[in-house]
Amino acid sequence: MSSLESFHAVIPAGGAGTRLWPLSRASRPKFLLDLTGSGRSLLQETWDRLVTLVPADQIHVVTGPAHAPLIREQLPELTGLFVEPSPRDSMPAIGLAAAVIARRNPGAIIGSFAADHVISDVDAFGAAVREGVAVAETGLIATLGIEPRGPSTAFGYIEAGELLTVADAPSARAVTQFVEKPDGPTASHYVRSGSFSWNAGMFVSRADMLLGHLARLQPHLHAGIDRIALAWDTPEGPAELEATWPSLTPIAIDHAIAEPVSLEGGIAVVPGVFGWDDIGDFAALHALRGSSSADVIWVDADGLARAEDGTAIAVVGIRDAVVVRTKDALLVTTLDHAQRVKEVPAALRREGRDDLV
Amino acid sequence: MSSLESFHAVIPAGGAGTRLWPLSRASRPKFLLDLTGSGRSLLQETWDRLVTLVPADQIHVVTGPAHAPLIREQLPELTGLFVEPSPRDSMPAIGLAAAVIARRNPGAIIGSFAADHVISDVDAFGAAVREGVAVAETGLIATLGIEPRGPSTAFGYIEAGELLTVADAPSARAVTQFVEKPDGPTASHYVRSGSFSWNAGMFVSRADMLLGHLARLQPHLHAGIDRIALAWDTPEGPAELEATWPSLTPIAIDHAIAEPVSLEGGIAVVPGVFGWDDIGDFAALHALRGSSSADVIWVDADGLARAEDGTAIAVVGIRDAVVVRTKDALLVTTLDHAQRVKEVPAALRREGRDDLV
Repeated sequence: MSSLESFHAVIPAGGAGTRLWPLSRASRPKFLLDLTGSGRSLLQETWDRLVTLVPADQIHVVTGPAHAPLIREQLPELTGLFVEPSPRDSMPAIGLAAAVIARRNPGAIIGSFAADHVISDVDAFGAAVREGVAVAETGLIATLGIEPRGPSTAFGYIEAGELLTVADAPSARAVTQFVEKPDGPTASHYVRSGSFSWNAGMFVSRADMLLGHLARLQPHLHAGIDRIALAWDTPEGPAELEATWPSLTPIAIDHAIAEPVSLEGGIAVVPGVFGWDDIGDFAALHALRGSSSADVIWVDADGLARAEDGTAIAVVGIRDAVVVRTKDALLVTTLDHAQRVKEVPAALRREGRDDLV
Repeated sequence: MSSLESFHAVIPAGGAGTRLWPLSRASRPKFLLDLTGSGRSLLQETWDRLVTLVPADQIHVVTGPAHAPLIREQLPELTGLFVEPSPRDSMPAIGLAAAVIARRNPGAIIGSFAADHVISDVDAFGAAVREGVAVAETGLIATLGIEPRGPSTAFGYIEAGELLTVADAPSARAVTQFVEKPDGPTASHYVRSGSFSWNAGMFVSRADMLLGHLARLQPHLHAGIDRIALAWDTPEGPAELEATWPSLTPIAIDHAIAEPVSLEGGIAVVPGVFGWDDIGDFAALHALRGSSSADVIWVDADGLARAEDGTAIAVVGIRDAVVVRTKDALLVTTLDHAQRVKEVPAALRREGRDDLV
């Protein structure tokens, strides 16, 4: 079993979760919410999983200025908080953390894990991370691929090729390709083939390898990150960050690294055999948690209904209803339309109701 | 034009309006609500219409003890409030008022008008009442029949026969029959025939004629009412009411008087050529008032949505939605299911949540 001594976890904590409006709000995004009913936010659950693998000072969070205070409150043991001045997508966020960590810890291995995913089997997650670290030690980038529960069109997919022979990573396979969210027939084809897994955005890599790929594939972005990282632990850090950050190429790690490097044979996939969900919308939340609070009156109706303020809800004659009441807002839709909920905050912004977004 | 000098209006103010839950509540029923957005409750609008015809002391309200305080508050000019100890349907309520008024005013003419109907043309209403009074002076009972807007199955119907020749009531016709709420095909047949109107429960009659019919058709009920009326304006009034009221036959005026007397040729119908609605459910409210408050976000959706507390509502992908949010409750349904809303308060009662009914 691989050692995790040099392993550092990076949690990019961003994303508004607009499909979970009005639960998820700009000021209180999905990762800060207790969506599973565990009493812990998704971010706290992510922390809880990782802290079983590494000491607290090897867990880092990257977020925006608006959420830093609440994150510090939710994670009092957190020492490694990176506050990015503005959102530039996942590659600058993970890249900066990797560059700073690599300067402090030559030979560090970085793993990136979203702040707002649900994972049901912590031991299986830990085992997959250990395999990922073993893969990363060979110089490859590892990704954790989730065994599909069905032909979902909500996720990107990873195609696995030949089995690799990495010590301590017996299930690692070469990645043939990353593919974007497919249409229904394509997703069915992927799942039937048995060689595709869901892309949950979990990557494990030697920091120097990651930065090397970045220098080669996104030299401008790499140069900016490198400048900021060089200054980070000096008095000039904040000024350099403010000056350089806005010029960084906004790009996702999938596009910047995963896709091109996979075509070069540089990525391996480790199967994640644990329950996983990104709770992307209310249909996912319903699948995860079931109907609702106890005091809903259903008359010839079913679905998900919850009132944050504990008031009574009655639903009459609507199948697969979604009813979410918060103090200042109310959403009514059906499970079928769960993906379209993101249009609500968009409409509210157009109407100047940013207070409700 | 007939004089209204001896005319007394009686407003039975009862009925929970359970199909308008959660707007309409046991403690704050439909007639106490401003459903039209006029700034006046339905009861106050009823009062406003009648006070254009008769002095305030010739308008009487019959209600239960729970609502008496709010009614007094809403109608400060009201002097004639009859508080019935328990609900016994409309005939005891109207019969007692008629008996008390008749003892005080021999020759009085009584008109009964529901507390929770909407009428859009006050002048046309007044003209119909005047015709009704002219009919009543001949000894017939007059009813105001509403010209159907369509083949509704939510109302009873009145079939008109031959034109009568009553001075000051040129449009009065003999009533052939009263019929209960019909099914769809029957309603269509009624409307096509041109001789049916909606039964809005508005009756005008000489008080002595009404009581005479009652003595003949419901002698037990009449005897009880007569005993209470005899004591009403004496110190024994309250005791007699408490003692006798529970023994009165609970029956609607339609069954006690209108139907049997119509078969004897004793009822005439005066067409009510004014906009009328009983706002029986949210479909009716939607037809009357249109969509909703301004700050509803509709995404591929329409219908009626309102939040009593002014909070934002978003509806996604539901046509003909009905969304009603109050401080302590929330209803979600569709216009098609408007009639089934009454099942919600029934379910709440079964669950012991009478506080929400």
